[in-house]
Amino acid sequence: MTAHAPRPDQTRRLTSTVAGDGHVDIRIAEHDLTEPRPHEVIVRIKAAPINPSDLIVMLADAEPSSARTVAGEHGSALRLDIPGDALARSELRLGATVPVGNEGSGVVVAAGSSPEAQALLGATVAVLGGGTFAEHVRVPWRACMAFAPGTPARSVASAFVNPLTVLGMIDTMRAEGHTALVHTAAASNLGQMLVQVCVRDGIGLVNVVRRTEQAELLRSLGAEHVCVSSSATFSDDLVEAVAATGATIAFDAVGGDTTGQLLVAFERAARRTMGAYSPYGSEVHKQVYVYGLLDPGPVHVPREVGMAWGVGGWLLGPFLQRIGPDGLARLRDQVAAGIDTVFASRYAREVHLDDLLRPDVVEAMCRRATGDKYLLVTD
Amino acid sequence: MTAHAPRPDQTRRLTSTVAGDGHVDIRIAEHDLTEPRPHEVIVRIKAAPINPSDLIVMLADAEPSSARTVAGEHGSALRLDIPGDALARSELRLGATVPVGNEGSGVVVAAGSSPEAQALLGATVAVLGGGTFAEHVRVPWRACMAFAPGTPARSVASAFVNPLTVLGMIDTMRAEGHTALVHTAAASNLGQMLVQVCVRDGIGLVNVVRRTEQAELLRSLGAEHVCVSSSATFSDDLVEAVAATGATIAFDAVGGDTTGQLLVAFERAARRTMGAYSPYGSEVHKQVYVYGLLDPGPVHVPREVGMAWGVGGWLLGPFLQRIGPDGLARLRDQVAAGIDTVFASRYAREVHLDDLLRPDVVEAMCRRATGDKYLLVTD
Repeated sequence: MTAHAPRPDQTRRLTSTVAGDGHVDIRIAEHDLTEPRPHEVIVRIKAAPINPSDLIVMLADAEPSSARTVAGEHGSALRLDIPGDALARSELRLGATVPVGNEGSGVVVAAGSSPEAQALLGATVAVLGGGTFAEHVRVPWRACMAFAPGTPARSVASAFVNPLTVLGMIDTMRAEGHTALVHTAAASNLGQMLVQVCVRDGIGLVNVVRRTEQAELLRSLGAEHVCVSSSATFSDDLVEAVAATGATIAFDAVGGDTTGQLLVAFERAARRTMGAYSPYGSEVHKQVYVYGLLDPGPVHVPREVGMAWGVGGWLLGPFLQRIGPDGLARLRDQVAAGIDTVFASRYAREVHLDDLLRPDVVEAMCRRATGDKYLLVTD
Repeated sequence: MTAHAPRPDQTRRLTSTVAGDGHVDIRIAEHDLTEPRPHEVIVRIKAAPINPSDLIVMLADAEPSSARTVAGEHGSALRLDIPGDALARSELRLGATVPVGNEGSGVVVAAGSSPEAQALLGATVAVLGGGTFAEHVRVPWRACMAFAPGTPARSVASAFVNPLTVLGMIDTMRAEGHTALVHTAAASNLGQMLVQVCVRDGIGLVNVVRRTEQAELLRSLGAEHVCVSSSATFSDDLVEAVAATGATIAFDAVGGDTTGQLLVAFERAARRTMGAYSPYGSEVHKQVYVYGLLDPGPVHVPREVGMAWGVGGWLLGPFLQRIGPDGLARLRDQVAAGIDTVFASRYAREVHLDDLLRPDVVEAMCRRATGDKYLLVTD
């Protein structure tokens, strides 16, 4: 029997509030922790990764170099300026206090009355959603993934977003009838996981990275096809790699011109095996899912891709809704089995909740290089 | 019993051949008409519409004003120059003799041994595929749609491409869970059919046209929502019409910037009913299918569309393959029932096969205004 700490009445959490005159205030505020409902648990957060998607919520596309400390009636805040075009995108959150943090890990310290919630009491869990940049979160038991007693919370802090995104990409690829895939911004934490899963499962993968050093990193993980987008031979290299793997779908973190380059490479490879002329290009369906927009410009699809193509946004949330609770349970089991191997995460630096109100920390976090992820820790 | 003319051994047909040095030759050539196989019939073509897709095959994106008559060993040809970038698109057809004409109508003058083919002997049929800019074509019986005896061939010449495209758009809209649609270049023959079917069936439709006169034409057919893209208030008009109909899918004949404008309008309408802020925009899936590329530039998708969107190519051929023979039979019945009403076509001018070798005719045909379609007739 494990003894549990009494349920706290309050917790501290990070929030972000956009003001209509063009700034965002980031605060650490006391927050009431009400009794968990039957299907809920309260998790004492020990660690939470700071993902790119968290920075979007936290900073609302504000200018990192404008960060400064301001005093307010509820204590000090970190304030940043939001350029006009970015402010328009935040219209729906003006004035709202938005909790930050998509995932994290910790220990279940209180549970609702349902058997599933009760079963988690005392367990080390990873958590999805709920504003994890906090000392505690209250979440449904379904948003938890339990690990064996003694598992360090830090080692499972990133068990949800990146691992499920990797598995979601592979699941989507298969569900839509493709057998190999292309991934851009492939040197990221996510990309490194994808390489390892594809090597393990024998899935054809073409990795697109920006720099030669990144290609070496991925090759050291077992990647066979790595194309460097800054190389003069990039377009041709990409066609060769696509033809060699038979890839006809890409998951693209970049957008802008990159999306079109991927479709053009698919089409050029497909035309090599095209029997007869058609004014509409090859009949092979070519798909690119944009799951990030590192390039802020519009997504471009040039005419030479023919007519058998599709481009769309891809996000983890809608994917999980599509596969439902049973599908999620299946993927969670795969993550748990690989959390020390293919789904292990590394972090460049650890920070505490109060550090996220420091201008120098936030500026450095926004400048960070590919794969240099920060981990928020609470003790 | 009807007496049938004996099966001819040869026919005359229009062909198009692209040469690697940058020109296309259009000829009328004698062609052997071999015995129909069991599942085939031979149709004496009486009429064939000249659709935009036929002009692409015939002219290979050549410059219409360069058309001139040249003499060759197989008789005279119409020759046009192809600009360099367009020539690259024709790489796979260099030197090949490509028959022209996607659809037409006529009378079945010979049939293979299968009961289905025999049943068509003497019938007035519409035909899909096979190079219909000819005096005869040999096609599978499945490529025919039979009409009541006495039906004038001219009135059913366009029974396949435009009617099936209209029904295919509505079928796709429903299959993907949408309830109303947007159509661009909506004053076309196809667009006029779509208006009439949507009025008849009570389907919400937003028509996008370029000019005010075109809006009046569509309103005279019963269109409720028509947005004029040259109007200063176009963007706002489009959002209002999308919100009023609940349209979340568009069929876009234009491409370029238009595709993105449609997605932005969908997103702006969706955000009106969005409950909570999300950095990824509305959760409503927004889809645009590009089925033509009147704008030769790249398709643009701006960032403000959020993440729940898809864009893709849409063509009649792959759609018909997806729905299979039973689906096609179902749609064919709908076309036959409406061929004198919602699916009736009008033509601006009739031309003969030999006219298609005249520089002035081809130039005029390429300059034609929206909805001014030519009909090829053989008697």
